[in-house]
Amino acid sequence: MFKIAVIGGGSSYTPELMEGIIQRYQEVPVSELALVDVESGREKVEIIAALTRRMLKRNGLEQVKVSVHFTLDEAIKGARFVLTQLRVGQLAARAADERLGLQYGMLGQETTGVGGFAKALRTIPVLMEVARKVEALAPDAFIINFTNPAGIVTEAVSRYSKAKIIGLCNVPVTMHHMIADMLQAKREEVALRFAGLNHMVWVHQVTQQGRDVTAKTIELLCDGNALSMNNIKEIPWPPAFLRALGAIPCPYHRYFYQTRAMLEEEVEAAQSNGTRAEQVMKVEAELFALYADPHLDHKPEQLSFRGGAFYSEVAVELIQAIHNNSGKEMVVNCRNNGAIQGLPNDAVVETNCLIDAQGAHPLSFGPLPPAMNGLTQQIKDFERLTIEAAVHGDRASALLALVTNPLIGNLASAEALLQDVLRINQPWLPQFN
Amino acid sequence: MFKIAVIGGGSSYTPELMEGIIQRYQEVPVSELALVDVESGREKVEIIAALTRRMLKRNGLEQVKVSVHFTLDEAIKGARFVLTQLRVGQLAARAADERLGLQYGMLGQETTGVGGFAKALRTIPVLMEVARKVEALAPDAFIINFTNPAGIVTEAVSRYSKAKIIGLCNVPVTMHHMIADMLQAKREEVALRFAGLNHMVWVHQVTQQGRDVTAKTIELLCDGNALSMNNIKEIPWPPAFLRALGAIPCPYHRYFYQTRAMLEEEVEAAQSNGTRAEQVMKVEAELFALYADPHLDHKPEQLSFRGGAFYSEVAVELIQAIHNNSGKEMVVNCRNNGAIQGLPNDAVVETNCLIDAQGAHPLSFGPLPPAMNGLTQQIKDFERLTIEAAVHGDRASALLALVTNPLIGNLASAEALLQDVLRINQPWLPQFN
Amino acid sequence: MFKIAVIGGGSSYTPELMEGIIQRYQEVPVSELALVDVESGREKVEIIAALTRRMLKRNGLEQVKVSVHFTLDEAIKGARFVLTQLRVGQLAARAADERLGLQYGMLGQETTGVGGFAKALRTIPVLMEVARKVEALAPDAFIINFTNPAGIVTEAVSRYSKAKIIGLCNVPVTMHHMIADMLQAKREEVALRFAGLNHMVWVHQVTQQGRDVTAKTIELLCDGNALSMNNIKEIPWPPAFLRALGAIPCPYHRYFYQTRAMLEEEVEAAQSNGTRAEQVMKVEAELFALYADPHLDHKPEQLSFRGGAFYSEVAVELIQAIHNNSGKEMVVNCRNNGAIQGLPNDAVVETNCLIDAQGAHPLSFGPLPPAMNGLTQQIKDFERLTIEAAVHGDRASALLALVTNPLIGNLASAEALLQDVLRINQPWLPQFN
Amino acid sequence: MFKIAVIGGGSSYTPELMEGIIQRYQEVPVSELALVDVESGREKVEIIAALTRRMLKRNGLEQVKVSVHFTLDEAIKGARFVLTQLRVGQLAARAADERLGLQYGMLGQETTGVGGFAKALRTIPVLMEVARKVEALAPDAFIINFTNPAGIVTEAVSRYSKAKIIGLCNVPVTMHHMIADMLQAKREEVALRFAGLNHMVWVHQVTQQGRDVTAKTIELLCDGNALSMNNIKEIPWPPAFLRALGAIPCPYHRYFYQTRAMLEEEVEAAQSNGTRAEQVMKVEAELFALYADPHLDHKPEQLSFRGGAFYSEVAVELIQAIHNNSGKEMVVNCRNNGAIQGLPNDAVVETNCLIDAQGAHPLSFGPLPPAMNGLTQQIKDFERLTIEAAVHGDRASALLALVTNPLIGNLASAEALLQDVLRINQPWLPQFN
Repeated sequence: MFKIAVIGGGSSYTPELMEGIIQRYQEVPVSELALVDVESGREKVEIIAALTRRMLKRNGLEQVKVSVHFTLDEAIKGARFVLTQLRVGQLAARAADERLGLQYGMLGQETTGVGGFAKALRTIPVLMEVARKVEALAPDAFIINFTNPAGIVTEAVSRYSKAKIIGLCNVPVTMHHMIADMLQAKREEVALRFAGLNHMVWVHQVTQQGRDVTAKTIELLCDGNALSMNNIKEIPWPPAFLRALGAIPCPYHRYFYQTRAMLEEEVEAAQSNGTRAEQVMKVEAELFALYADPHLDHKPEQLSFRGGAFYSEVAVELIQAIHNNSGKEMVVNCRNNGAIQGLPNDAVVETNCLIDAQGAHPLSFGPLPPAMNGLTQQIKDFERLTIEAAVHGDRASALLALVTNPLIGNLASAEALLQDVLRINQPWLPQFN
Repeated sequence: MFKIAVIGGGSSYTPELMEGIIQRYQEVPVSELALVDVESGREKVEIIAALTRRMLKRNGLEQVKVSVHFTLDEAIKGARFVLTQLRVGQLAARAADERLGLQYGMLGQETTGVGGFAKALRTIPVLMEVARKVEALAPDAFIINFTNPAGIVTEAVSRYSKAKIIGLCNVPVTMHHMIADMLQAKREEVALRFAGLNHMVWVHQVTQQGRDVTAKTIELLCDGNALSMNNIKEIPWPPAFLRALGAIPCPYHRYFYQTRAMLEEEVEAAQSNGTRAEQVMKVEAELFALYADPHLDHKPEQLSFRGGAFYSEVAVELIQAIHNNSGKEMVVNCRNNGAIQGLPNDAVVETNCLIDAQGAHPLSFGPLPPAMNGLTQQIKDFERLTIEAAVHGDRASALLALVTNPLIGNLASAEALLQDVLRINQPWLPQFN
Repeated sequence: MFKIAVIGGGSSYTPELMEGIIQRYQEVPVSELALVDVESGREKVEIIAALTRRMLKRNGLEQVKVSVHFTLDEAIKGARFVLTQLRVGQLAARAADERLGLQYGMLGQETTGVGGFAKALRTIPVLMEVARKVEALAPDAFIINFTNPAGIVTEAVSRYSKAKIIGLCNVPVTMHHMIADMLQAKREEVALRFAGLNHMVWVHQVTQQGRDVTAKTIELLCDGNALSMNNIKEIPWPPAFLRALGAIPCPYHRYFYQTRAMLEEEVEAAQSNGTRAEQVMKVEAELFALYADPHLDHKPEQLSFRGGAFYSEVAVELIQAIHNNSGKEMVVNCRNNGAIQGLPNDAVVETNCLIDAQGAHPLSFGPLPPAMNGLTQQIKDFERLTIEAAVHGDRASALLALVTNPLIGNLASAEALLQDVLRINQPWLPQFN
Repeated sequence: MFKIAVIGGGSSYTPELMEGIIQRYQEVPVSELALVDVESGREKVEIIAALTRRMLKRNGLEQVKVSVHFTLDEAIKGARFVLTQLRVGQLAARAADERLGLQYGMLGQETTGVGGFAKALRTIPVLMEVARKVEALAPDAFIINFTNPAGIVTEAVSRYSKAKIIGLCNVPVTMHHMIADMLQAKREEVALRFAGLNHMVWVHQVTQQGRDVTAKTIELLCDGNALSMNNIKEIPWPPAFLRALGAIPCPYHRYFYQTRAMLEEEVEAAQSNGTRAEQVMKVEAELFALYADPHLDHKPEQLSFRGGAFYSEVAVELIQAIHNNSGKEMVVNCRNNGAIQGLPNDAVVETNCLIDAQGAHPLSFGPLPPAMNGLTQQIKDFERLTIEAAVHGDRASALLALVTNPLIGNLASAEALLQDVLRINQPWLPQFN
């Protein structure tokens, strides 16, 4: 029996997570769910808390306590797991990032490019505060971080605090489901070997019941299967590229390999339906209207359009594997420790790990092939410069981060862009003031 | 249903292995056991085959075919697993190694020092021949190597052939049982983190139900628990050393840290009861007398004095984990691939791995602490020079190997020692002729 | 007294080189200059040979033999230095590269992007042939390579032959002269610490009489000093970028950091004066008209517009340092050997080396800072994939090379571009036929 | 014109150093020599100061000021070079180390084994105090360290202070002279490529006028040339070992490869003439009697028996190369920075460096061959554990250091030995109190 604190408990994703916990309650016997949010999000988090209580009741789990908090201390104290799924500045800040990118003729994606950069600057100080509270009040707890840019945020905490942290993303699990479907196989029969960074991860091998079916999977992809996420446009990969690579890019690689097409799509969407954040705001408004219904006692269908498929699946799997010391293989974001050669030991990478009560232990992978190494190095350098900027409020690192990212990479406008980022996000960037 | 070839099937250990397979037959559904030995070992291997058939019958497994071979081809063809547990030159050669070491005032241990060196020179050519047959006749098979010096032999095959090979040793499993006993816990509740080389491996962490109990285990060891194998003298470790190290050496470390005491014990034993090989010869003679009894249909008690406790446990676990693609964590000898930083990628190391149908995937460990690194590097260098000598018949590498090993390390007598090794083992060293 | 072979002796640069040798004849006592060119370049190489003889005579060095060859063997046999400054397909092929790049909306620069890629594919087979002749006929000779893309070509020979090779570029020496001028100091008082790749090299430290003046130099650059070469547009670097970087980029970095502006300039030049190659063709025609004048017995002024300033300075310095075993510090392209951490040992890098009779010994540099590492890794990966493509005729590597280069990086058109490159250059790409 | 501070100015070596400075005064124009010693060494340092003034006067250099100090501040303030050649506890402490080693049946050598360990514990705190003074009072100064164990002491300062430090030893220069003599060549025609650790360094290549003569040199050594120092017994290396190694060990390697013979020689010497320290005490007494002679105005012949040949040669060469920013190649002890792969970047190594006003820049060497790597790693680990013990007063590191050193390596007596070291040296080990 253990306590879970959910930082950003008022998120529209929370019911997804709660459903996962309820379904696997035997394996993850939670005693308390402590939802934390900011005071300005009081209404939302209380809607979520009430819905959670109804969901628990429907499943005969009234004994699970649901508490609501607007400061960290009480929520974190004594927790076994601290889930971080917060959004500093909320969707309005994300929309501002997206619009700023487009204004400069750049991709305005949430987790990379200038959007990911701005979000990291806003988010890292808050996560560091959570980590310091965990160090003091729940030193054995694991922080399980979903907050994007998940790789950067996880690395900042991993390097600058003693709190234990593991980053989670739904890209690997989504690819797993999709590839199993392509192979017309059960998910548990199919295993994928991932190595890379968050939102820049490759599948290097696919096995089905232990046999290597990587080439077969690539041919299926060459045959028109697009392998995307519902928030990323399904531009197919050129077959010659996939065959030459001998591996499977993740959907987010499109931002780097097909930048122009992705930008055109973003521009068009922004003009017609609004940017992704603007669309999500509408979805969220609808979701909270549903959540507030006192008769609703289950996760509503509509949440599946939100984009976070399988989040609860991986979160509950991870909690279960740690709690039960199970030695399960999972794909998470953690300290590299030499697993991917050529990246620093203290870099956070996304790769297959064995999970037990001590945390995540990455399997040795070796070096990335040349066609993947350079881009990965460049993005990792961007991430590390961004972390330096975010943790120390260092403008030089911030400028170099922007220049290093290939989605920004326009030296001529980098300074102006940085000034705009710092000005627009000024309320959330105490480290630069 | 699959076929297992056992190279060195006439070994006195084979009944141990057979018992393991029989007990876990549901998980390892063997269709054929192909026992291979040299013509001069015909009597022994036929005794073993007959005993195996009786053991199978007793357990209602008459459908498992037991075949006997004196050449490799038929045995290896179509096998899924090729177990190598052979002894080139048999115990007489081992006894000669031991006597040679003592004659030079050196330890004459079978797996390190001059004994391990000589055994590697004799064994590697035969294992390379097995590997070439596997490449040609059973390219998907795994060689599971128990043959000592297991780390060196496994590395030679791993680097100089395309055959898949995993090395096994009963030291990690024996330490696991002993430490669990010390902690008065069930083995499955206790997990050990190993990293090092075969017969030079440390336990870096002990957990019990997921909690770190390394310091507690060290204190138990300081309190007189000796943690040894039944073929290594139980000299206790000085408490201050264990506490400073913060880790647990394996029993074989005594040869390096307590060389003088171990040598004195060897000298005394050689004078009274004979060297270890000479003692084992007597045990073996008794064992084969038992095995030949047509009424014996189970593994006799006396085998437990032979020294190979838990061999069958780890062998069957490994076969099971590969066959069932189970993702189980085990401690085996395999290609380092960056797991232990500072050792070459193609060095074979002994460490915790995730085992599935693709083989062994070591968990990233990071660098060894300074107090362990230097000795490990030195032994690995000895191993690599020995492999060069054994594969290419290169005398310069052979001499440097002897000089590099701290148990030999006597430059003055190294050349004479090398000449003696090459002379005594001349029948088994075609590569030097 | 030694022999120098000049492969591509009919180059318009040759008189520059000859002038250098004549001026420092005491230090580089040449007995023979063997000029080699293709049969179709017979007229040019004979013009150069005649001019060289007149230049030697004017300086009282008639004893130096000047020979002309149309096959490699006689020229290379017994040479101490083999200078490679050839241009496969001549300027017409370069012009085609430039036009092809522009047709795809990409930079068509000679040494990077698609132009550098195509030039590498054409050039590497010829250089490998030179290397094989050197291995056989002059195994102690040094190949001194000026042929662009110099880093890629040098690495191909370094990795795929046993011939000794050092690559030279005039970028470091030009930066040295310019920075000394900016500091109003003599060149010999100013020292620069370079580390990077050919045409992607940074100055990490500037010292003047031993004192660090890096920050002062950066401020001078921020104040409007443009630091360029006469074939690269002088776009100033943003001061905030230079200060954040704390280092000085080379002129070629503009292609990567200011891609759009450089492309616009190329497009405009191509429309008005022709591409760079087309302009150079005119310059060359004028130069050869001058060279052919039987009264000319010195290097004409007009050669300085050709772009190869200081080539002869570094070439003669290098020959002198090797010949005299002088231990001189120079910036050359050679095997990394760990000097720049994070790049492979067998990668060719451009950095400060100690030069003696054994060749070039790079000074240990350590890792590149994050803001430089990623881009460098990406370009090195591009280079290595290009080498695989060029040496083995491997289309998959060729496609991945194009996709990896950030100046190409357009996945959508990469295949079509590759097909165009292979088609246009078909006469010079036997490895792909 | 610059000031040199000499810490340990009362050393009997000082006249050697002074002679070197006087001979090369044009290149090293010293304005002041500030001799520092402890109060108890007042008599000696004043004898040295007076002798130095007479030597200067004889050479017409009365303008060079010679000052004597018993605290660091005034001596270090404004110095350009701080030479450290001190001996904490003086020869009596060294003699105690030697006797202690012999008492335990171990080598009692001054710079390695238990003697080197004890000397490092005594010396590092004093050197750290010097370094802190340099940081504060002469931040641009170079510390030039001769104090043994020079590699360990230099690394301690290099890692734990910001002061610039270069370690010097006379082993490389002595080997250079000896090998040139063997080759019957001038020293300046012969170049040696060193890589290793202080007192554990190999010559990997010998060139004569640029041509590789390594094999020839090895054959000369095989032919009876012993290559030793006048304080190390000349046991010849077995020819087969030298040929297999393909490199030349330094004289100190004998302690590791020929331990027994060296120990026997030490035991015998201790019984007949006294330990090395005891012999040196007599030599020193005689030397100071000579030095005190008011008519002596040059370095006396007898100093050459003291063992420090060529110290002044390398010291003055180094001062000259830094002062004149000369880019000279020298063999010194400095931060590895990747030069020897497999050793940490911050390890101090002994290898060929380019010396200029910025300090020592090691040439990239690559990995050590297997026959050298393991021993080097082990000694470096010993050194690093010793540094941890010395800097932090950490007993666990101290015990592990002793156990790690192959000359001690006797686990059974390690604790007692450590207690004896700490007890005997108690006055000089404030960090352990």
